[in-house]
Amino acid sequence: MERIYTSEVASRVGQRVRLAGWLHALRRLGGINFLVLRDARGTVQVVVDTPEALTILEGLLPETVLSVEGDVVAEPQAPGGVEIHAPQFEVLSPVRDALPFPLNKPEMKATLPTFLDHATVGLRHPQRRAHIRLQAGVMAGFRATLTNLGFTEIQTPKLVEAATEGGANVFGVKYFDRQAYLAQSPQFYKQIMVGVFERVFEVGPVFRAEPHDTVRHINEYVSLDVELGFIRDHRDVMAVLTQVVRGILARLQESYAPELALLNAKMPVAPDQFPSIYFPDAQELILQKWGEDCRGEPDLAPQHERWLGEWARQEYGSDFLFVTGYPMGKRPFYTHPNPADPAFSNSFDLLFRGTELVTGGQRLHLYQDYLDSAARRGYTDLRPFETYFETFKYGMPPHGGFAIGLERFIMQLLGLDNIRLATLFPRDLTRLAP
Amino acid sequence: MERIYTSEVASRVGQRVRLAGWLHALRRLGGINFLVLRDARGTVQVVVDTPEALTILEGLLPETVLSVEGDVVAEPQAPGGVEIHAPQFEVLSPVRDALPFPLNKPEMKATLPTFLDHATVGLRHPQRRAHIRLQAGVMAGFRATLTNLGFTEIQTPKLVEAATEGGANVFGVKYFDRQAYLAQSPQFYKQIMVGVFERVFEVGPVFRAEPHDTVRHINEYVSLDVELGFIRDHRDVMAVLTQVVRGILARLQESYAPELALLNAKMPVAPDQFPSIYFPDAQELILQKWGEDCRGEPDLAPQHERWLGEWARQEYGSDFLFVTGYPMGKRPFYTHPNPADPAFSNSFDLLFRGTELVTGGQRLHLYQDYLDSAARRGYTDLRPFETYFETFKYGMPPHGGFAIGLERFIMQLLGLDNIRLATLFPRDLTRLAP
Repeated sequence: MERIYTSEVASRVGQRVRLAGWLHALRRLGGINFLVLRDARGTVQVVVDTPEALTILEGLLPETVLSVEGDVVAEPQAPGGVEIHAPQFEVLSPVRDALPFPLNKPEMKATLPTFLDHATVGLRHPQRRAHIRLQAGVMAGFRATLTNLGFTEIQTPKLVEAATEGGANVFGVKYFDRQAYLAQSPQFYKQIMVGVFERVFEVGPVFRAEPHDTVRHINEYVSLDVELGFIRDHRDVMAVLTQVVRGILARLQESYAPELALLNAKMPVAPDQFPSIYFPDAQELILQKWGEDCRGEPDLAPQHERWLGEWARQEYGSDFLFVTGYPMGKRPFYTHPNPADPAFSNSFDLLFRGTELVTGGQRLHLYQDYLDSAARRGYTDLRPFETYFETFKYGMPPHGGFAIGLERFIMQLLGLDNIRLATLFPRDLTRLAP
Repeated sequence: MERIYTSEVASRVGQRVRLAGWLHALRRLGGINFLVLRDARGTVQVVVDTPEALTILEGLLPETVLSVEGDVVAEPQAPGGVEIHAPQFEVLSPVRDALPFPLNKPEMKATLPTFLDHATVGLRHPQRRAHIRLQAGVMAGFRATLTNLGFTEIQTPKLVEAATEGGANVFGVKYFDRQAYLAQSPQFYKQIMVGVFERVFEVGPVFRAEPHDTVRHINEYVSLDVELGFIRDHRDVMAVLTQVVRGILARLQESYAPELALLNAKMPVAPDQFPSIYFPDAQELILQKWGEDCRGEPDLAPQHERWLGEWARQEYGSDFLFVTGYPMGKRPFYTHPNPADPAFSNSFDLLFRGTELVTGGQRLHLYQDYLDSAARRGYTDLRPFETYFETFKYGMPPHGGFAIGLERFIMQLLGLDNIRLATLFPRDLTRLAP
């Protein structure tokens, strides 16, 4: 008999079906034994109503892999309105060890370190599984939106010869008899590929050797990168980002409704056009509305971002807010200045519920501008940049882009208090396994 | 005026349009000047028929970025049947340096090392660009097929604590004050995730520190990985792989026809079911048909694979052939034996036109089997495996999977003589940049 998923059971009332999955729970209620079977799609309740079945189940531990044949019966009391009767079990993979923590409670009780130590089984918990499954939805929505907008996917190398974006926070690799580094971002590669495809995106790992131990930092994460050419300025990049965010949210609502429901996710309000405020105006607003004078500061503090997030919500009903025109000094050397006000940049951050989610902007596109900018930053040795800068010698259109951290997106969407809960197998100062 | 792509020009005869792109070529034919403009979608011919336009173009070098407004005129003599008249040009990004090699010849003339040194501009050549664009098509077809089959995408860490698949060919990373390694494959992680999602796939980089200098090896490549649970045996894995290969080819034919045409790609014959031959039978066939006795050898030589590829083509009209049941000794320690003949494995290679393209098979799924297999291989220190093996303590269904090398697929599909031509920015013994 063809195996079906637990999610298909409700449409098979009156039929005998075959299921397979994990022994999620065994319960005894009012003298009746119930087995809850879990598979990739959900769970179903099995009434263990024959002595033969009971004998087979005796002593079985949670997570035993089973095949179950049984009759689908409508039962309003049962979760999902159906249950399986007259089951015949087959043990596919026995379990002899007790789990490090229960997987069948609605909430995961293990502490974070314990959970992470045993994530290889802990991720089977329906809530934790849903976090990771939503990652797949974010990636799918990201790619689909960009493919529809004429973008080409690329996969750029992660082993690089030189640390081109700040030398300190980079991991070194012994590459045969030479020194290599792990790419901190695909920044130069995606810019280079604008010269080839005009519009490109990449989904891939990035590596940051920042010795941070915070709830918002991990040392390897998945970056959703975009770069596009023939733009007017950063506003064209913001328009694409807006479509990408809306496309991701639409994909989640379309195809990941069970996960969102399980997690009680509060979907954000993402209007057609996200509101936007110019950096100096944001500082002025903070002074007027909250009495804090941060004018002249080169960046916004987290509290400032939270205030601005509140304001966007009240004023525009939007969970998203662009802050544009950050001062040049706080932006990377490839950032394009605002031609009308060159101390400020054609860049932006996208705040999501008052926390920075995305950074992006227009880039320099002329070779001489790269040389000048590098000189201004005091980069004396330009050899590491040579092969990248070559692109700009040979005609690059005005371009820009942005990057979204996959795990950050999930963390902020679900309101998780630690990014490690939104990460498959996190890497941090102390953790390299599993 | 809204910019359109060169590919849209043919549908705009009689209209004035705006284009943007790169100065691909300037030609003088019979006293008339032609400019060929290239953008992400193709090229179009512009007749430079006004003195003002000619003045602007004077001295412009190839790859100058231009915006062009002009009238679309049907012209049967022109490539594509249309050309642009009465153009007005605007230079967006000037070029002052001569290219390292021409990008506007039908075939790239540069030697491979020269090309690779300047790949950041060399990839703009239409043929080279098409190789990389087909990569995007392969990834899209891979993901779409698997998503339709109920697979969930994952992104697993590339920084790992231990070299679990052969210690020699692994790159070491200085990870704060510890030693880490770059993952040679997502093998264990994708198996672990079968316990969570049952069916998973990943597209991501893998790192091989093999000191090979061949036309078929690079040290970082993109691996298309699949793993699925609740299988009978390796034949269920082969069925999924067959659908994946056919899904990829269908996607290329649907959405990448211009690239396939430009490269004169000969699309392979991929029947509904790929033929299959058992390893010992393949050796017998080689003896009968080609007189070479390789019976008892643990593996097939490249010539054997070529013969078998010819045979599959003649006998079954298929460019693809499965060879199943490789001897256990030549397969990784997680390989599942053939229960009926335990010296042989429930594994397979997929030959594509007589060359191995994919390796896969059923894996061990019981904890004790892992311990036994590791012991048989003489692994004395199992600590590096501990966090991975934990999964198998807690109920793993029978499962298996495979991995396809993205660059290999493109190389074999297009009949390229060096994998570096199918790789965006190759990493090899001598090359770490660009």
